[in-house]
Amino acid sequence: MTSRQTRILLAARPDGAPRLEDFEVTSAPIPEPGAGEVLVRTLYLSLDPYLRGRMGSSASHSSSTPPVALGAVMEGGAVAEVVRSEDPHFGPGDVVSAATGWQEYGVVAATAVRRVDPDEAPVSTALGIRGMPGLTAYGAIREIGRPQRGETVVVAAATGAVGSLAGQMARLAGARVVGIAGGERKAAWLREAGFDVALDHRDPAFETRLAEATPDGIDVYVENVGGRVWQAVWPRLNRHARVPVCGVAAAYSTTSTRVDTDVAGLMSGLVTRSITLRGFVFSDFEHLRPTFEREVADWLRSGAVSHHEDIVDGLANAPAAFLGMLAGEHLGKRLVRVSAGSGS
Amino acid sequence: MTSRQTRILLAARPDGAPRLEDFEVTSAPIPEPGAGEVLVRTLYLSLDPYLRGRMGSSASHSSSTPPVALGAVMEGGAVAEVVRSEDPHFGPGDVVSAATGWQEYGVVAATAVRRVDPDEAPVSTALGIRGMPGLTAYGAIREIGRPQRGETVVVAAATGAVGSLAGQMARLAGARVVGIAGGERKAAWLREAGFDVALDHRDPAFETRLAEATPDGIDVYVENVGGRVWQAVWPRLNRHARVPVCGVAAAYSTTSTRVDTDVAGLMSGLVTRSITLRGFVFSDFEHLRPTFEREVADWLRSGAVSHHEDIVDGLANAPAAFLGMLAGEHLGKRLVRVSAGSGS
Repeated sequence: MTSRQTRILLAARPDGAPRLEDFEVTSAPIPEPGAGEVLVRTLYLSLDPYLRGRMGSSASHSSSTPPVALGAVMEGGAVAEVVRSEDPHFGPGDVVSAATGWQEYGVVAATAVRRVDPDEAPVSTALGIRGMPGLTAYGAIREIGRPQRGETVVVAAATGAVGSLAGQMARLAGARVVGIAGGERKAAWLREAGFDVALDHRDPAFETRLAEATPDGIDVYVENVGGRVWQAVWPRLNRHARVPVCGVAAAYSTTSTRVDTDVAGLMSGLVTRSITLRGFVFSDFEHLRPTFEREVADWLRSGAVSHHEDIVDGLANAPAAFLGMLAGEHLGKRLVRVSAGSGS
Repeated sequence: MTSRQTRILLAARPDGAPRLEDFEVTSAPIPEPGAGEVLVRTLYLSLDPYLRGRMGSSASHSSSTPPVALGAVMEGGAVAEVVRSEDPHFGPGDVVSAATGWQEYGVVAATAVRRVDPDEAPVSTALGIRGMPGLTAYGAIREIGRPQRGETVVVAAATGAVGSLAGQMARLAGARVVGIAGGERKAAWLREAGFDVALDHRDPAFETRLAEATPDGIDVYVENVGGRVWQAVWPRLNRHARVPVCGVAAAYSTTSTRVDTDVAGLMSGLVTRSITLRGFVFSDFEHLRPTFEREVADWLRSGAVSHHEDIVDGLANAPAAFLGMLAGEHLGKRLVRVSAGSGS
């Protein structure tokens, strides 16, 4: 083991869409764990849309948590292997999920990591369908959307880590499911995964296609993009429609103060059609985690649900992979493979 | 009994705020009930903000129900007395609530009326605290807001028929309650009714006053006005705040297409703070009606909840009374006393 490692720092706050120059690849010493801490080596780093918000300086994205400090290691969740432990609960070779950020090695408190069992499923799934995006989808469908047999469910960013599970869960509940994604490759994957209809939001006639695909209106819309898709969905929402809002990709990278829609009109529509908009983050649904983990494991074993990982190799490629993800080039859960782990 | 009656028709669709000329007072024959119908004489006519929407031609208010036809009797709920019945379930002298509209006499299907027991409470309360506005408030608090002891609840239009019950229910649940109304007379009434703080939205320093009155932020906001009050409330909503939306008075009379706020910003805020916006109408809560009627009757008997009726005499005064209500001149539930009933 060398004594130095690669880390990626936040070098600048993006003004609009992030650029490669907003990140800086550096070298730093591998830190030492103190009492109650573990030193871990990152196996997979998770790339997620919410990280754009963590970079700061977006006109419309605000958070109660301050963004990543300039010059600090970029935040992010990871699956990692314990290299050295100063805590009795963990030993070398244990696999854990931990928010170590964009670096090869990190020191974290043993109380802040979650054990990952490599025998249950590939460890990378702890960052996707069995992790944060999975629990996001699970809460969106089970607690907010609650689709009924025969209802129509529309899922934005449907090939993403959240959307693909949300859509497949809605199908299992007996709903008609329309998935929206960018491009024919993604649409083909949606049809394979059992979505009833796959629409390309880049289609100039997208609004017409959506209307054709939802002749009985829309009962549940899993919102995580905003913008043009939201504008097309809004007039088609049925009475008593439920809209779990788990992100607004269109807002993450905008500095525009242009306004899309009259909020009084939105509010009036909520009343007239008894619509629920509910924003949430995965941690609102921690109480569901035990049933979530059991159900997803069952679905993966039986093949009832499929998932796709889009893996990029090498930590130094994380910035480009992240920018590509924001631009929608990935299919499924995007991960960076940082190292192979001692067991593989 | 004369054979003719007074009726008020919708004469024109308002362009913005309604005017007296949008209504026409006319005379018409008293109709005859057919089989399964009852002829009723209106005792009290209910004036409610949603009726502005029923007049049509508002830029931002849309409904799945078409508005009242031009030249037709203006819609509205009423408490009425049965004069003649062609249905075995009702007889002369029975008091009912029915959507007879703005007229002295109406014929309605017996299946479309609800019996009102004059021994339980004054019959006029069937249009207010024990009727549609009461059930609206009850659903807003019991099913959506669910205030917990120590939380902060803000109620807009707090002296109105919906707001006053919502605020008092939140107080009974142990919440700190801030009521918003227009003018000192209304604020004084709110303090009498037990609201912790009463704010005047006409106060130039309203935003500052609201911030001072909600040092721990806002957990539940009962929204029925929109506009400036919403703009002041929005940044103060706490994580996991619940916003029952039962009307947007600011939108009822506007033809402006001016936009208040960025919808993408709103959506982002919903996610960042896990906020729920839920639009509803009273009929979404029909399943609560039995417990609602029992609880409100108990509260009225024990004095736990107070209510106020603002009664205007004479059907011909309904248009002016309605315009005045939209302008906020009333305190409590505004009613028009149309006739005295045979029993009084």
